[in-house]
Amino acid sequence: SRSIDLAVIPGDGIGQEVVTEGLKVLSAVLPQDVKLETKEFDFGARRYHATGETLTDADLDALKGHDAILLGAIGDPSVPSGVLERGFLLKLRFAFDHHVNLRPSKLLPGVATPLAGEPRIDFVVVREGTEGPYTGNGGTIRKGTEHEVATEVSVNTAFGVERVVRDAFARAQARPRKKLTLVHKNNVLTFAGHLWTNVFNRVAAEFPDVTTDYIHVDAATIYLVTDPGRFDVIVTDNLFGDIITDLAAAVSGGIGVAASGNINPSGAFPSMFEPVHGSAPDIAGQGKADPTATVLSVALLLRHLGYEAEAGRIEEAVSADLAERTGNPARSTSQIGDALAERVAG
Amino acid sequence: SRSIDLAVIPGDGIGQEVVTEGLKVLSAVLPQDVKLETKEFDFGARRYHATGETLTDADLDALKGHDAILLGAIGDPSVPSGVLERGFLLKLRFAFDHHVNLRPSKLLPGVATPLAGEPRIDFVVVREGTEGPYTGNGGTIRKGTEHEVATEVSVNTAFGVERVVRDAFARAQARPRKKLTLVHKNNVLTFAGHLWTNVFNRVAAEFPDVTTDYIHVDAATIYLVTDPGRFDVIVTDNLFGDIITDLAAAVSGGIGVAASGNINPSGAFPSMFEPVHGSAPDIAGQGKADPTATVLSVALLLRHLGYEAEAGRIEEAVSADLAERTGNPARSTSQIGDALAERVAG
Ligand SMILES: CC(C)[C@H](C(=O)O)[C@@H](O)C(=O)O
Ligand SMILES: CC(C)[C@H](C(=O)O)[C@@H](O)C(=O)O
Repeated sequence: SRSIDLAVIPGDGIGQEVVTEGLKVLSAVLPQDVKLETKEFDFGARRYHATGETLTDADLDALKGHDAILLGAIGDPSVPSGVLERGFLLKLRFAFDHHVNLRPSKLLPGVATPLAGEPRIDFVVVREGTEGPYTGNGGTIRKGTEHEVATEVSVNTAFGVERVVRDAFARAQARPRKKLTLVHKNNVLTFAGHLWTNVFNRVAAEFPDVTTDYIHVDAATIYLVTDPGRFDVIVTDNLFGDIITDLAAAVSGGIGVAASGNINPSGAFPSMFEPVHGSAPDIAGQGKADPTATVLSVALLLRHLGYEAEAGRIEEAVSADLAERTGNPARSTSQIGDALAERVAG
Repeated sequence: SRSIDLAVIPGDGIGQEVVTEGLKVLSAVLPQDVKLETKEFDFGARRYHATGETLTDADLDALKGHDAILLGAIGDPSVPSGVLERGFLLKLRFAFDHHVNLRPSKLLPGVATPLAGEPRIDFVVVREGTEGPYTGNGGTIRKGTEHEVATEVSVNTAFGVERVVRDAFARAQARPRKKLTLVHKNNVLTFAGHLWTNVFNRVAAEFPDVTTDYIHVDAATIYLVTDPGRFDVIVTDNLFGDIITDLAAAVSGGIGVAASGNINPSGAFPSMFEPVHGSAPDIAGQGKADPTATVLSVALLLRHLGYEAEAGRIEEAVSADLAERTGNPARSTSQIGDALAERVAG
């Protein structure tokens, strides 16, 4: 009999609330014969204040054995900027080698977009997750003086670029339009830019049925608001991916519905799935958070573990739910979760 | 008697066409007693193909003596990516220490925006122009092999950050709303982020009447499409500024109307003014290019040289012209230039 052994990290702010609904929908969608086991981990601001710890080697060991990780949100204004980001979120991505950061953007019927007209939006960003300016390389000299110099080093390797580019080509090939766009800034960041461009072109030769193009990151932000329909799959560096996926989320219904996966395709370590939104401390504990992005992250998780049909059922349920929202009274976090659980079970 | 001694760089693609109209409007707006002298320089793709040169020391010497520089566009697909960008555009910014890259975004009445509703957009981005990931620091080892490593080093100094932050505070203080937003990614790029944040907070103490806030660059792209009205003046690093000003241009009427100034406030070297759009080789030579962004760049140039009234007259003429465009037949590049010249002279 099949089983899913899930590590659950509710985290800070609205994290607990949205994760509860994500698990509710997960339980509802799984066939009887799949045994779901969950283990909750207490990470984030509370733990940091109590112990000074963010993510220890023992924590990583404990997480390692699970099939996947579901995360709500990590971050709180009471913790200095960077501590939980570098000490937890990025530490986990690097430790578990989550080099494929998957962020789909699909504007579903009935969902409001800040864009005028009726844009057709259905693309996926494959963001590199373990290199670029995120490595923490760099430093500071003469800190706090008028002679301070601070550097940030973007590190890019053929190994790291090729594996994520290859993953993106495979994803593009599996979609009807079969189109892959490389987003970079190769006219200015010429060292990294040449590496990305050369690897991209080399791998492209192995996927002759995939149409390719290249767009500078600055121009990509223009297209994301004037012609988002031109994108099918985008592959890009860690920092550019961070920036354009927030914009992509904004134009395709907001971060309330934006899901993401931090994936290690090799399976050597569990992959992690989380909503793109943060901990939203201003609305925490009030039942106001929209759990949809977490529920869609559960769908990505299921697809990653091979439960394609169940993932599809969740996505259909979310589509149907969103289509009925306009004009209806606002619902609480758990009411939305209940409605989605009912749909996927039905 | 007064005079303006202008270096003019038409450049590639539509550069020549739009610069012609910019100069037409400049001549029309200047009072009789101001003597305008222009000297044209041949830079860009043609020169590069003919001589292999992009911008020599002798060129820099020749440009140096002028009061300001007006540039059309540099760039052509026939030149490998990076050659003209690093060899001309960035070389000039660095050589003339253009550390204040000024990019106003104002959605004028009658102008189409990709955003729904009727957003109020009126802000200025002050982008640092001589540091960050644009310095060309970094390198490549084992190029072309599966073991290639390419780095890009973002260099940030207290000196460089403070002067642009100070400039931005002064600009914010001179505007009615007096609000300055720092855009960075200080939770991930902690070395550069701390420097920017600390300098920003230190300088803020000298401008108690300016309201300040901080937004991560990824979140800034969300606000630029969901709530652009929240911004008054933004100060940011070179690369983040590159990205968000293209998005800002897109939401506030498109790059057809986006002007920019590469400013050296000390006056030690001439400042350069240029439209944000590129050379658009696909429509070059057809009289289809919109010269408005160049004309607005001429307004920035005039304001920089102390001709505030004339700058204002150009901006009013552009406003009036844009307001009358909807529903009227498209005009050629020179027809738009003629109309604007007539308005500012009138
Ligand atoms: C919180 C932060 C470290 C993170 C990132 O920059 O990757 C976030 O913005 C994201 O996109 O997941
Ligand atoms: C062409 C390129 C070097 C330039 C930049 O990146 O600064 C352009 O995108 C700009 O914004 O002026």
